[in-house]
Amino acid sequence: MNFTSDNSYGVSPEIIAALSEVNEGAAGAYGADETTARLTAATCKVFEKEVAIFPVPTGTGANALGLSSFVPSYGAVLCHEEAHINVNECNAVAFFTGGCELCSLPGTGAKLTATALRKRLAQFVHGNHNPRRSAVSITQPTELGTIYSLEEISAISEVCRENNMRLHMDGARFTNGLVSLDCSPADMTWKAGVDVLSFGATKNGGMSSDAVIFFETALAEDFERRCLQTGNLLSKGRFASAQLLAYLADDLWLRNARHANRMAAKLAGGLKAAGITLHAEVQANEVFAILPGIIHSALQVAGAIYYCWSPNPNSGPVPSAPGDVLARLVTSFATKAEEVDRFLDIASR
Amino acid sequence: MNFTSDNSYGVSPEIIAALSEVNEGAAGAYGADETTARLTAATCKVFEKEVAIFPVPTGTGANALGLSSFVPSYGAVLCHEEAHINVNECNAVAFFTGGCELCSLPGTGAKLTATALRKRLAQFVHGNHNPRRSAVSITQPTELGTIYSLEEISAISEVCRENNMRLHMDGARFTNGLVSLDCSPADMTWKAGVDVLSFGATKNGGMSSDAVIFFETALAEDFERRCLQTGNLLSKGRFASAQLLAYLADDLWLRNARHANRMAAKLAGGLKAAGITLHAEVQANEVFAILPGIIHSALQVAGAIYYCWSPNPNSGPVPSAPGDVLARLVTSFATKAEEVDRFLDIASR
Amino acid sequence: MNFTSDNSYGVSPEIIAALSEVNEGAAGAYGADETTARLTAATCKVFEKEVAIFPVPTGTGANALGLSSFVPSYGAVLCHEEAHINVNECNAVAFFTGGCELCSLPGTGAKLTATALRKRLAQFVHGNHNPRRSAVSITQPTELGTIYSLEEISAISEVCRENNMRLHMDGARFTNGLVSLDCSPADMTWKAGVDVLSFGATKNGGMSSDAVIFFETALAEDFERRCLQTGNLLSKGRFASAQLLAYLADDLWLRNARHANRMAAKLAGGLKAAGITLHAEVQANEVFAILPGIIHSALQVAGAIYYCWSPNPNSGPVPSAPGDVLARLVTSFATKAEEVDRFLDIASR
Amino acid sequence: MNFTSDNSYGVSPEIIAALSEVNEGAAGAYGADETTARLTAATCKVFEKEVAIFPVPTGTGANALGLSSFVPSYGAVLCHEEAHINVNECNAVAFFTGGCELCSLPGTGAKLTATALRKRLAQFVHGNHNPRRSAVSITQPTELGTIYSLEEISAISEVCRENNMRLHMDGARFTNGLVSLDCSPADMTWKAGVDVLSFGATKNGGMSSDAVIFFETALAEDFERRCLQTGNLLSKGRFASAQLLAYLADDLWLRNARHANRMAAKLAGGLKAAGITLHAEVQANEVFAILPGIIHSALQVAGAIYYCWSPNPNSGPVPSAPGDVLARLVTSFATKAEEVDRFLDIASR
Repeated sequence: MNFTSDNSYGVSPEIIAALSEVNEGAAGAYGADETTARLTAATCKVFEKEVAIFPVPTGTGANALGLSSFVPSYGAVLCHEEAHINVNECNAVAFFTGGCELCSLPGTGAKLTATALRKRLAQFVHGNHNPRRSAVSITQPTELGTIYSLEEISAISEVCRENNMRLHMDGARFTNGLVSLDCSPADMTWKAGVDVLSFGATKNGGMSSDAVIFFETALAEDFERRCLQTGNLLSKGRFASAQLLAYLADDLWLRNARHANRMAAKLAGGLKAAGITLHAEVQANEVFAILPGIIHSALQVAGAIYYCWSPNPNSGPVPSAPGDVLARLVTSFATKAEEVDRFLDIASR
Repeated sequence: MNFTSDNSYGVSPEIIAALSEVNEGAAGAYGADETTARLTAATCKVFEKEVAIFPVPTGTGANALGLSSFVPSYGAVLCHEEAHINVNECNAVAFFTGGCELCSLPGTGAKLTATALRKRLAQFVHGNHNPRRSAVSITQPTELGTIYSLEEISAISEVCRENNMRLHMDGARFTNGLVSLDCSPADMTWKAGVDVLSFGATKNGGMSSDAVIFFETALAEDFERRCLQTGNLLSKGRFASAQLLAYLADDLWLRNARHANRMAAKLAGGLKAAGITLHAEVQANEVFAILPGIIHSALQVAGAIYYCWSPNPNSGPVPSAPGDVLARLVTSFATKAEEVDRFLDIASR
Repeated sequence: MNFTSDNSYGVSPEIIAALSEVNEGAAGAYGADETTARLTAATCKVFEKEVAIFPVPTGTGANALGLSSFVPSYGAVLCHEEAHINVNECNAVAFFTGGCELCSLPGTGAKLTATALRKRLAQFVHGNHNPRRSAVSITQPTELGTIYSLEEISAISEVCRENNMRLHMDGARFTNGLVSLDCSPADMTWKAGVDVLSFGATKNGGMSSDAVIFFETALAEDFERRCLQTGNLLSKGRFASAQLLAYLADDLWLRNARHANRMAAKLAGGLKAAGITLHAEVQANEVFAILPGIIHSALQVAGAIYYCWSPNPNSGPVPSAPGDVLARLVTSFATKAEEVDRFLDIASR
Repeated sequence: MNFTSDNSYGVSPEIIAALSEVNEGAAGAYGADETTARLTAATCKVFEKEVAIFPVPTGTGANALGLSSFVPSYGAVLCHEEAHINVNECNAVAFFTGGCELCSLPGTGAKLTATALRKRLAQFVHGNHNPRRSAVSITQPTELGTIYSLEEISAISEVCRENNMRLHMDGARFTNGLVSLDCSPADMTWKAGVDVLSFGATKNGGMSSDAVIFFETALAEDFERRCLQTGNLLSKGRFASAQLLAYLADDLWLRNARHANRMAAKLAGGLKAAGITLHAEVQANEVFAILPGIIHSALQVAGAIYYCWSPNPNSGPVPSAPGDVLARLVTSFATKAEEVDRFLDIASR
């Protein structure tokens, strides 16, 4: 009963198998290989557009690199106060950009709204003494497992256009959002106005290869240099590309995400049936549940593992009784239905 | 006949196999897992000392991260003019440190000497208008495949101590140097005064996991934050650690390096026998040969692949006749004796 | 009736006169001159301690430089949400440190409290995934013209010691605070636990010379390099030092500040007598008044100039009726009593 | 007999007088004042073009800020190995750009040539593993007091255009070059292809105000933010602008430079007549003379002060006999003919 994170679990065997498959003979280094060329072609097909894709080892690198390609040292990125870039990446965006400020906003369900953004942007009243408003970053699905609808993304993108800003999507759990919305990758990204995407694979059965995807290839002009300069350009690049190719092949990515989402829905349904309040709507593979202290204790005793989250009343209901906790329960491609059942069994007693 | 680089070849099967072996169940993320703990223990044993080891995805990341842990934005790192950090890493050290200058020196065989360093350090005559002299970085084996003797490393380290500087070793091909000197890892590093080591595995049969090793653990105090902030901290860390554990297990690293060095020696011997001049002594797994134009053409026609290097007369003999080239020939764990034979056969005609 | 800012007014004539006085013959450049030596001696005397002082052209430079001497790229500085470093310096601290995060806190009167700091520090629950808690920065007097008592500063400094952090004071209006507390410069700084001070002169009759003062001289070891590297080391340094010497001479700094504070007190008294609510207590040279729309209009018509501030309900009472504004009224060494009288006359009608 | 530097001497009295003249009443802060508007107008007139001018406190700031406006962290700036940005500014350019490399070239008289630049640019053979070639920086007059002809500047500018690079001019001693060439400011800058100029005043009788001048105003879009963020935007901006206005008024800048150049010519003529070899041609206000040890000693005894320069044989003749020194003798607006006579008198014995 390990619900700590989707990166606590291992790797889809298909992805490890793919490593052996490309391990024959010599190949160009640093991405100048045939496997990487195939990955680019596959990605263009998946996104129905000519895109530029750069495999990178980590999601933090993907976010900070993507943003640094159009945010200057004197710029500002607007994001939700619970955004991973804001609370879990140890100043990475500021480091990669040489100083950029993250302007964080509150919002229910860890979501930004066009209205909230417009209001915040209007507070940049000090002209050049304020940073330049350069980008908005949204996480899809959010850090609370909620989902932006296509309309919501488009509305945010419109705010960006109005203000000469770019739109970045942190898609650490991209596929969990995609199968939840049941739309096309194009719909959820460039058709809704996203400029650059952190395309996460690691949390959904991958090993060590996420990617940055630019929907306007001109933005990627010097991106390989940025990757190299920051230690994010792999020399034996074919092994990163092979992971992502296997991830996209035979719908592995979709299957993994669908399973994870199903497990979360099952968990959420059971908890609600047991009268437990959820902190946020469950739309992907994360459940934030307000566990009564007694249930929390019973679960701990039974060996369940999960994080007790810092409750943010701006985002949703929070524990009120002493001893109650806000549990973050993350499901993954590898979560077993029996584990969920066992968890619910204890939680329902 | 691919001699382009040791990162053009694939990965030792043992290393890929190790990935499957650790792919069971859940584990702590970001290095808080049992595989990583075992790696630390194994590394301490190999180096006969309590060390701190951090797996990172690339050699460039290892170099820049290691140096940034003690070089300030207003610092200077002395290195050879052919050092990888100086010519192939796209300003990575300056980026990670926020401005540090690389002061590059010439030297035969791509090697620094204590004497040359002392002379260069004496030129910092402008006090605070010069950067602070913070570190020396040496590459072992060098970018020309030559080797620093233990005495030479110690002499350089003494210059560092005298000037309150640190000594960094870029060990992208560490093991090729180690088996060439036939000494212990401790001898070639901390016992000779090295403070921090970029421990390369990728070029010697690894996949995507080098490491930074601190011989003084206090230096590593905030290093995990640096790794995270720069996108160099892998979430599913056990898969990076597993690569390095397999690399060290059963002498795989030593066997791979010995084979590569043997192939280089064979190549060098054959070329010398054919009357071809070498640019630098062959002590590890790289051969720099001055190929007459006619031989170069014949090799190309026969399908041999290698880089024509920019000749640096400070480092060794260079081509003089028009059409002659300075060929860099790199051997690896996967180089076949027959390839070398075929190459020599053509070169000797 | 210009109450826009204390940097809208000119320079004390004594300070300009001092420039001519040191303009004779040659002198060492970059601070190696006799005038600068005299400034250091004078500052040590004023602060009753051996200090290191570095004149710099701007207050923003002073803040960012001072903080960068002990805050790493992966560090965090805690400050009030209205702190000048947080809202008016265009990411300077993040730029100088290479990425540092400003963690801003709310608080009445733009003041931090030891209690609020402790609570915020306890939220750094993500270990190395959070930045390192490196420093607290307080502004004395605050951006709202309120004053930290010596006890309050000491209490904050104690939080710093407990957490291995440093305490920085933004003293852009240092002297206005000093004469308000009627204590010694030593009392308000190092005796209360301040490690580094941005010593402002520009806003109090100076021209272009603030200073960074370190109370622990070891912290200043490489500070001249930082100043040079950032374009903040003046070549004809004697002219910066001469400004500060004249500022300290004959109590000019104290006289200027006392006048400014008196004018603010007069203004505040008159406004309160007229029934106008103040947003914050008036303890130095700034008055934040909630002006009814009708009075605001009358003042505008009469030619009064001042900023309408963004009201922050966390900090104090804010305008509630439509049309009402939160006016920031800053007095200076050059503010005339008649101007204040005229302003009050209109406001009291 | 102080020939150490042109920043060892004081300030033209007209410039100090100008400070008092603008010291009346209130004015907009941070450059939003009438004096600064007048400076912009005057500069446009002087350069016969609509330009953007930003006063900054130091020449180092001017250089690094100007270059940072178009050089990315992964970029390279080509400059002479004796360039001030390369040897005297403590990594400022790398700091402001977040990592940019200075690629330094040798060259007679501290001058770059179009030929040498083309040859160096051709060595960027590693594609994205090399930094992007972003700019060339030339110093006019050079650090050795030599002058680029208009044709030479144009030829360098052509190399820039061919390679999509920008041309920066470090004009720390701009006016000394201008009066030497006896051309217009437009001729020596934008008409010859210069994109951005560090316009030095401090060394030529100024106090603490140099300037960055953009000849393409679009390049300056966010420049005020850069200045603020780096502590280089003065709050009481009128006092910086007033210095520069006085500098340009009544040909003060030209008169000062002409005097300094005349003194250098006199010095050079006398030394040559005395049989002393010069290291570089004297075309502005610096003389580099190879002084026999005995003369050097006599001058020291007589109280002459100057720097003994590090001799660079790439740049010109260097001392050969033991005890001989390469003396740098800088003249300024304040250098007296009698001092030169006295110096020559001793040197000619």
